[in-house]
Amino acid sequence: MLLGSLEARDKNLTCAVGDGHGKILDKIEVPRTTPQKSFKEVITYFRHFTNLKALGISSFGPIELRSYSPKYGYITDTSRKGWKNTNVVGTMKHYLNNIPMSWTTDVNSSAYGEYIHSVLDNHPIRSLAYVTIGKGVGVGIVNQGQFIGDQGNPEIGHIIPKRNPKDMTFKGVCPYQGDCLEGLVSSKAFEARFHKSFKEISMFCPIWDIVAYYIAQCAVQATLFIRPQQIIFGGAIMNPIELRKIKVQFKKLLNNYVPVGNLDKYIQMPDLSSSKLAIIGNLSLAKKHYYAESPI
Amino acid sequence: MLLGSLEARDKNLTCAVGDGHGKILDKIEVPRTTPQKSFKEVITYFRHFTNLKALGISSFGPIELRSYSPKYGYITDTSRKGWKNTNVVGTMKHYLNNIPMSWTTDVNSSAYGEYIHSVLDNHPIRSLAYVTIGKGVGVGIVNQGQFIGDQGNPEIGHIIPKRNPKDMTFKGVCPYQGDCLEGLVSSKAFEARFHKSFKEISMFCPIWDIVAYYIAQCAVQATLFIRPQQIIFGGAIMNPIELRKIKVQFKKLLNNYVPVGNLDKYIQMPDLSSSKLAIIGNLSLAKKHYYAESPI
Repeated sequence: MLLGSLEARDKNLTCAVGDGHGKILDKIEVPRTTPQKSFKEVITYFRHFTNLKALGISSFGPIELRSYSPKYGYITDTSRKGWKNTNVVGTMKHYLNNIPMSWTTDVNSSAYGEYIHSVLDNHPIRSLAYVTIGKGVGVGIVNQGQFIGDQGNPEIGHIIPKRNPKDMTFKGVCPYQGDCLEGLVSSKAFEARFHKSFKEISMFCPIWDIVAYYIAQCAVQATLFIRPQQIIFGGAIMNPIELRKIKVQFKKLLNNYVPVGNLDKYIQMPDLSSSKLAIIGNLSLAKKHYYAESPI
Repeated sequence: MLLGSLEARDKNLTCAVGDGHGKILDKIEVPRTTPQKSFKEVITYFRHFTNLKALGISSFGPIELRSYSPKYGYITDTSRKGWKNTNVVGTMKHYLNNIPMSWTTDVNSSAYGEYIHSVLDNHPIRSLAYVTIGKGVGVGIVNQGQFIGDQGNPEIGHIIPKRNPKDMTFKGVCPYQGDCLEGLVSSKAFEARFHKSFKEISMFCPIWDIVAYYIAQCAVQATLFIRPQQIIFGGAIMNPIELRKIKVQFKKLLNNYVPVGNLDKYIQMPDLSSSKLAIIGNLSLAKKHYYAESPI
């Protein structure tokens, strides 16, 4: 069973094909220029595979996920030039023989990839939150094999953390809320605080403890809202030292109110790159969609 | 199709029977004394209905929800005298011919009742958070018809709110975390602040704005984590004036980051009593369980 994965990221549109068991057979990167040019290459690629059964598509946001919306399958009001109001699913359906297609966010596809990876790896994690922290804070949540999010994708980057007593004056960089999580811990927040990239900030700088305090609150809220089996933190900001700091703060803040098992298993960084996870996720979502549309 | 509902609450065990369409046909209250005495009455009641097809059971917590646990169906370590380690589902199964039984928390059954009520009322709300604020803060979350919570029920009473600048010194009453949501807004928090019941505090007292600020954060986090169609606030603390204050704060804090539609529809108090909702929820969960166990 040949399945496809298309992931629209900032720089590239990643196209891949794989089998029904999570194995990736081929992959190319198409530069993200204009939708017209990029999609032409994408379609040419997938048309090589005449027996493609279904396609899993994921994209940067904001995207319309509500199946009953006339804009379902669109990238909506992105600031990426030329990509506003782009009908991704409609275009692919039109040029790829209307095969079944799934449609979700980039971070959802990675989250689903983690879920499928754990199943393939024989330690199934049915419920997990996959959080990425970079320019923004994104999340995909799988609850017993299903995504969470009815009116749209979870947006936990915009939860409101309790401020760290050593960090009461920084206003945060979120244009909507100021000091929401993303406004305090994203790479943009580092730039606003230090006028340089987070990459140039020593891990001995106390800011990393402050940031860990905020990210740990995100882990606490995820624990209490979702009661997942695992929380995964990825993205450019994350590193093993910071992960350790997050765990220390998490433990203090939750104070064993609910059991989470072994903390080193519970809070982790991803095993695979988010891009690889996205392909695994999309292939599996494509398969699921295929059977939903043609169950026999 | 005759279905049963059993809800274990603080004072009573509510027993009811209904049909497969959400209609309640009969109801009695059994005082909660010892498990032995109370269950005897409960079993006698349900045994009258010889054609009972399935039973939906909900209970005060903490309870074991994980179906793979040997303690599934138990009330676990409650402080209610005599009720620790009580095998509710096992006892009912034993004395009621092993008919199919669902098992969930009291607040989950009310949340599910809201979901079913909305379907019966022809304005289906597939995804909702039902929050009760009283002695504690409880929540049931329905995500596209399914409960959220893999390792246990959501426990959003223990999320950590950003402190209100006018309320920086009160330490909160949660024995685990101090100033988590429950530690700041429960009836016990009012007692600790004022040495009297919240019922004696005038609605003109500024504490209600402070409490609304914390509860509004809970609504913001629920919005961002779950992206539900509706958030319902019930429980002893809630009243229409406080609900309005919560909406005002919610609007400020979320600042339209994600759309929630009409705010008066989005954040509401329950139409029906939590007890009635629990029966409707349990009857429907019993039916769902019946078809899961005997699908043909």
